Amino acid sequence: MLPYELASRESRPENTTINVGDCCFGAGQLVMIAGPCAVEDPDMLADLAVMLRGAGAHVLRGGAYKPRTSPYSYPGLGEDGLKHLARARDASGLPVITEVTDIRDLDTVCKYADILQIGSRNMQNFPLLREVGKTDYPVLLKRGFSATIEEWLLAAEYILAGGNHRVILCERGIRTFENYTRNTFDISAVPAIKHLSHLPVVADPSHGTGRRELVAPVARAAVAAGADGLMIEVHPNPDQALSDGYQSLNPVDFGRLMDELTPLTAALGRHM
Amino acid sequence: MLPYELASRESRPENTTINVGDCCFGAGQLVMIAGPCAVEDPDMLADLAVMLRGAGAHVLRGGAYKPRTSPYSYPGLGEDGLKHLARARDASGLPVITEVTDIRDLDTVCKYADILQIGSRNMQNFPLLREVGKTDYPVLLKRGFSATIEEWLLAAEYILAGGNHRVILCERGIRTFENYTRNTFDISAVPAIKHLSHLPVVADPSHGTGRRELVAPVARAAVAAGADGLMIEVHPNPDQALSDGYQSLNPVDFGRLMDELTPLTAALGRHM
Amino acid sequence: MLPYELASRESRPENTTINVGDCCFGAGQLVMIAGPCAVEDPDMLADLAVMLRGAGAHVLRGGAYKPRTSPYSYPGLGEDGLKHLARARDASGLPVITEVTDIRDLDTVCKYADILQIGSRNMQNFPLLREVGKTDYPVLLKRGFSATIEEWLLAAEYILAGGNHRVILCERGIRTFENYTRNTFDISAVPAIKHLSHLPVVADPSHGTGRRELVAPVARAAVAAGADGLMIEVHPNPDQALSDGYQSLNPVDFGRLMDELTPLTAALGRHM
Amino acid sequence: MLPYELASRESRPENTTINVGDCCFGAGQLVMIAGPCAVEDPDMLADLAVMLRGAGAHVLRGGAYKPRTSPYSYPGLGEDGLKHLARARDASGLPVITEVTDIRDLDTVCKYADILQIGSRNMQNFPLLREVGKTDYPVLLKRGFSATIEEWLLAAEYILAGGNHRVILCERGIRTFENYTRNTFDISAVPAIKHLSHLPVVADPSHGTGRRELVAPVARAAVAAGADGLMIEVHPNPDQALSDGYQSLNPVDFGRLMDELTPLTAALGRHM
Repeated sequence: MLPYELASRESRPENTTINVGDCCFGAGQLVMIAGPCAVEDPDMLADLAVMLRGAGAHVLRGGAYKPRTSPYSYPGLGEDGLKHLARARDASGLPVITEVTDIRDLDTVCKYADILQIGSRNMQNFPLLREVGKTDYPVLLKRGFSATIEEWLLAAEYILAGGNHRVILCERGIRTFENYTRNTFDISAVPAIKHLSHLPVVADPSHGTGRRELVAPVARAAVAAGADGLMIEVHPNPDQALSDGYQSLNPVDFGRLMDELTPLTAALGRHM
Repeated sequence: MLPYELASRESRPENTTINVGDCCFGAGQLVMIAGPCAVEDPDMLADLAVMLRGAGAHVLRGGAYKPRTSPYSYPGLGEDGLKHLARARDASGLPVITEVTDIRDLDTVCKYADILQIGSRNMQNFPLLREVGKTDYPVLLKRGFSATIEEWLLAAEYILAGGNHRVILCERGIRTFENYTRNTFDISAVPAIKHLSHLPVVADPSHGTGRRELVAPVARAAVAAGADGLMIEVHPNPDQALSDGYQSLNPVDFGRLMDELTPLTAALGRHM
Repeated sequence: MLPYELASRESRPENTTINVGDCCFGAGQLVMIAGPCAVEDPDMLADLAVMLRGAGAHVLRGGAYKPRTSPYSYPGLGEDGLKHLARARDASGLPVITEVTDIRDLDTVCKYADILQIGSRNMQNFPLLREVGKTDYPVLLKRGFSATIEEWLLAAEYILAGGNHRVILCERGIRTFENYTRNTFDISAVPAIKHLSHLPVVADPSHGTGRRELVAPVARAAVAAGADGLMIEVHPNPDQALSDGYQSLNPVDFGRLMDELTPLTAALGRHM
Repeated sequence: MLPYELASRESRPENTTINVGDCCFGAGQLVMIAGPCAVEDPDMLADLAVMLRGAGAHVLRGGAYKPRTSPYSYPGLGEDGLKHLARARDASGLPVITEVTDIRDLDTVCKYADILQIGSRNMQNFPLLREVGKTDYPVLLKRGFSATIEEWLLAAEYILAGGNHRVILCERGIRTFENYTRNTFDISAVPAIKHLSHLPVVADPSHGTGRRELVAPVARAAVAAGADGLMIEVHPNPDQALSDGYQSLNPVDFGRLMDELTPLTAALGRHM
């Protein structure tokens, strides 16, 4: 028996497909998740969401609870941030994904979110995994920045074992000796997951590279390797973002990326 | 300003000392923490604790809540395990340290433990750090297996910033390409912490090596490098342990290690 | 001044282009290098070369001198292997690339090779770099398996500083904690090199993944990220290869990869 | 059969001992190798050697051929540097160790050196390993900065297989994600080598830490872990050293380290 029985391709040969709003993960479509690292101003967020929808995005991302390395860094807006996300959803029609970092906030996050995100630092927060496994929300499970592929699938297994089968994996780069990039985006993880598991996998080239100029090429690469979706940090004014601006695209660059992806997905027999 | 203001040696030039039972971390004594990876049978634990006390150990370790990579692995005994620990404390007189993995278990763990342990996987579980920072229990904070020294000190800063100044750091090996050992014990972290911070630092060569035959030499090395204490997995019958037996010493080998450490600490101007 | 002055994009804004046979690195074409890890039987090699040419490959690879981790592993055929490569070139019309591992073999290798390969283990063999820098042969410089991008460009700088400007960089995966793959293919290195340097960069997904089933998706990814070429291990019967068979494609799979790459390169505005 | 047959403890249960001058590696003595990173001024070197001898050092180190990451860095004095080493040997009575980086310089280096050093970057320079394996000089083989313990022992096997059994291994730190230290000194490698092999192993805490203030504690740790010797960079005026000054001790600090090591080795049943 494989250690990750429920997550394994053997246990379920066909792809798991997960519908959110009018998009579907795991069925050939390239699902585009976009938005700022952290939710800041509500008007700005709603305007951005409308713009992203216009450019072809399917899901709005934004952090209300931010896990920060330092206790003195910007922690996010909390429930106010969730309310801003909900307002941006109303304005744009885009479903929203946001991170839950504290098990005690789960009910609150569920009131506002369409997809729950488990961040890299919480990939092995097993009580949190068990709790989201009891909900019926889709869960995007980011790979721990030093997790092996097996450990990542075992983390997914915690959620699946709780009865929640709507798990989306997200490769976001691993920690290595290379310091030119913020992380080393593990492109092989994308086809490896498709080989080992039936779960959809998306790519986050923003955290995976940590450098704005590398986001588009690595995004294209992830699609060519078989990713079911992309998660891209977009900010109306990256240089003034409260978090991670150096890896955020502005809306114009995001539009340019969408233009590149259209022929690429077509050449791969996929669609957007 | 340093990113870890409160943890920095600059902010407090003299060593922080932390008294637990009749031992003291950070004041020249080599504090010996020993016990099984996971609490199993209560009688066995009490007998082992008495034996460890006789061999010179100062603190009893044992896991009641085990963070396990797989949802199907042995999860620990929960509160029953805590009760067994308390009974072993009564039998031996040794204070006990045990891990808290779920913020919801904190009050329960505090009813039984003398020192709270934050495990490697939870080093960046920021809500949990904030909560233990509100208690007045000593906290042993293990280094994340892929955390930099700076990230580790920033995690300590979360606890200190909450008002709890009784933080003990624990080096337990980092994840690298080398796979002969379970982890790569970062010996330099010991003097680096003493240089950068006023907090005491102990070493866990059991997890740091993952190989029984390397535990004693790496334990001696950590002491020679300046560690304030050691945390050693000891099991009455390692080959039948429910968790991590391959890296556990038996009581005889633990006694032999204690015999080696006595002249070593004396040569270093320390005591046990 | 940048540490790698001659290799830097600042010193030469336009791409360096390198012609070999009827293909060109760095000018939009996707150059396909293919062949066995090690040269074995001469007839088999010539037949394979003809087949590869038919499938659209541009350059034949094959090792005559193999750097092997163990002194007891197959070391390659030496000069006989070079002769077999030359014969396969005559039979197929494909120029050949082969590795030089010993400075004393350089003149011999130059008698037969069209492109000199410096392997990963020799990326910082500085005397060898200086010597190939004195030749006028194109040099394919593989990234050391633990070299940073800066160290890699500085290794190229050794060759450029000797007066040889025909350097092709080759990303082949780096060593990390992940052991599902043989190496972690650093996809970000491809656009990073295009950003930092004017030198062409090719990708070796065979060594970069070490798993046959991952070669094609990572090859596609590298092209989408901007690689100027691909280096693919192909063996007529991978399961009987004397070296690295588990990561070699057979000719049928190579043909299938070529079929995938044609629409992909077109969608990217490139050609094969 | 083990992959490293000749290097294995199984093939030779007793320790290999290697005599150089009046010291012996592998027989309980702690052999102290000390000197500057690179040979600079001849008078300074001779004076330093006399001072080191006075402080209790057994072997003088110094680089005449320096493998440098950049082609523009100080390359060493070449044969002139070797001559300065020979003069310092005459002045002090200390045998000398120096690195050979180019197979073509081997005969020249053998004219002056008492121990040949193979540096980290050349640990898998197999032609060079084979050549030093044909000499009867003791060879100090540094671990590659990303080599596993198995690869390191296989590199030693190349030398042993050539008939030269006088191989001394040297742990000098491995490359990891941690960047506070220059490398991560792998303390477990010391007892692992003693367990797996009969060859002596020494430790280089200067390169292993890259920080002057960590050299002494890590040196003590290596001794406590069982190292047969230490290799310490000492420079009369570290802040003006042409190479690696930030990790060099001055003679006063070296003397202080020697004073610390005397009681430590005695407590461990060893001698200096």
